[in-house]
Amino acid sequence: MTIAIVGLGLIGGSMALEIRRHGLANKIYGVDANEQNRMLALELGLADRVLTMEEALKDASLVILATPVSTLPQLAAEALDLSSDDCIVIDTGSTKQQVCKAISGHPHRSRFVAAHPIAGTENSGPSAALTGLFTGKTNIICEREKSSTAAIAGAVKLFDVLGMNTIFMDPVEHDRHAAYVSHLSHVSSFLLGRTVLDMEKDEKNIFNLAGSGFASTVRLAKSSPNMWAPIFEQNAEYLSQALLEYIMHLQKFHYHLMKKDTTEIMRIMTQANDIRRVLDGIALKQSEQPS
Amino acid sequence: MTIAIVGLGLIGGSMALEIRRHGLANKIYGVDANEQNRMLALELGLADRVLTMEEALKDASLVILATPVSTLPQLAAEALDLSSDDCIVIDTGSTKQQVCKAISGHPHRSRFVAAHPIAGTENSGPSAALTGLFTGKTNIICEREKSSTAAIAGAVKLFDVLGMNTIFMDPVEHDRHAAYVSHLSHVSSFLLGRTVLDMEKDEKNIFNLAGSGFASTVRLAKSSPNMWAPIFEQNAEYLSQALLEYIMHLQKFHYHLMKKDTTEIMRIMTQANDIRRVLDGIALKQSEQPS
Repeated sequence: MTIAIVGLGLIGGSMALEIRRHGLANKIYGVDANEQNRMLALELGLADRVLTMEEALKDASLVILATPVSTLPQLAAEALDLSSDDCIVIDTGSTKQQVCKAISGHPHRSRFVAAHPIAGTENSGPSAALTGLFTGKTNIICEREKSSTAAIAGAVKLFDVLGMNTIFMDPVEHDRHAAYVSHLSHVSSFLLGRTVLDMEKDEKNIFNLAGSGFASTVRLAKSSPNMWAPIFEQNAEYLSQALLEYIMHLQKFHYHLMKKDTTEIMRIMTQANDIRRVLDGIALKQSEQPS
Repeated sequence: MTIAIVGLGLIGGSMALEIRRHGLANKIYGVDANEQNRMLALELGLADRVLTMEEALKDASLVILATPVSTLPQLAAEALDLSSDDCIVIDTGSTKQQVCKAISGHPHRSRFVAAHPIAGTENSGPSAALTGLFTGKTNIICEREKSSTAAIAGAVKLFDVLGMNTIFMDPVEHDRHAAYVSHLSHVSSFLLGRTVLDMEKDEKNIFNLAGSGFASTVRLAKSSPNMWAPIFEQNAEYLSQALLEYIMHLQKFHYHLMKKDTTEIMRIMTQANDIRRVLDGIALKQSEQPS
């Protein structure tokens, strides 16, 4: 079959690598708004040809949309319009409410699958494409009931090939949870980076004291603004809630620190230690991947 | 020579492993206030014997203090009192002002070296001891001028054996920088953990959406409260400044998010991306380690 991938960056490019590795497609057609990305994708073998939307989608059996979430509401409709009647269109965006809402009245809604494969790195663009990126990770599909059985089956098959475990979720629930366990992490990391870089203006060599802990905490601050700004904006309501709670916790901690209230400081930290239980769960999930 | 290590946890234990590996000592004597740690340290071969302070320090040529920073001001004085006239006493605490101040009038101040080997993991206790923990990392020595030439030479030799690069710094400068690039990272991670765990009470299965990015950002929330609460308290003044700046940046971001000010959100994130330059520096520093 022919698979069209729209957006040849970290996610689209990594999918191309897996699709090729597992022989899922005879042909991979790539679409990208960026000239440099198109050239690079060809060079890296992420697509057999790079084409326009119209050309790429005409004969495709499966279309994967892997562009910034701000483009997805319109692009999803466009992809359904341009593709044939038995073609499945899957998006991979990190927010799910807006694309689901935008597509809800489309005559071909049943050919669409709203997905979020939870995988990534802090890098972006075709050169960030990575074999094994998805292996052992979780994929979320939203509004399963609005997709046809065939579309769900086709999508799940793709994510199975990627080595992912697919679960189903309501888009509102998805976006609320994502605000806490993904989007807030990115914001906290971006602003930690900003805070320390600000300090560096006055104090040279501040990074002599930076260790691997700092590197780990601030890693996500390297992420692409083009990808993340639209995610934050689309999920502004829940991200705002998460941010306000985070700021409240930081302020409480600051208050107890200033009061020299050791008991309370210890209590907060000991409670936070419980995250070990969760992280061990994550590590477990990821160690299940066939290497 | 005989080396005494007071505090047989992550840092003390890892030093013991390296000292043994490189044959730096004939005998390693361990001291620990905790019965279980003492047993475990013997089992793991981190010390040849576990003794009292008096017994361990009597014949030691080198004493390493690796206990929580709250104990160091008193412990440093005690170690100088109990050790012989040619013995070097080195502390390894993550804050440097208070121990330097406490020891400043001690008659044997010149035998003391105020050090901070910047290495660690989120784990603690003797079983967290790790070969290679220090390799390629930075060690800070403060108030070099108050230690004798022999004491500095002995300390630098130890840190050389550990594979560390030693630099010299003023204790105030050390603590101010550490607040930003180390202590703030820990606070941000602890409170991120708290925020998400709070959310979990209401929303089960929230961690289905957690990926490797979340794991990286929240990793330090697993750190030991016993080790970190005293660090935060000793460095409360500078940590408070760092925290207030961090909270200010988060609030500004929140304001622009609510105003849907895409330009400003993009600008903040693009500036934060500059942390890549710093992290590449850190990665570079650590990749220099002989493996």
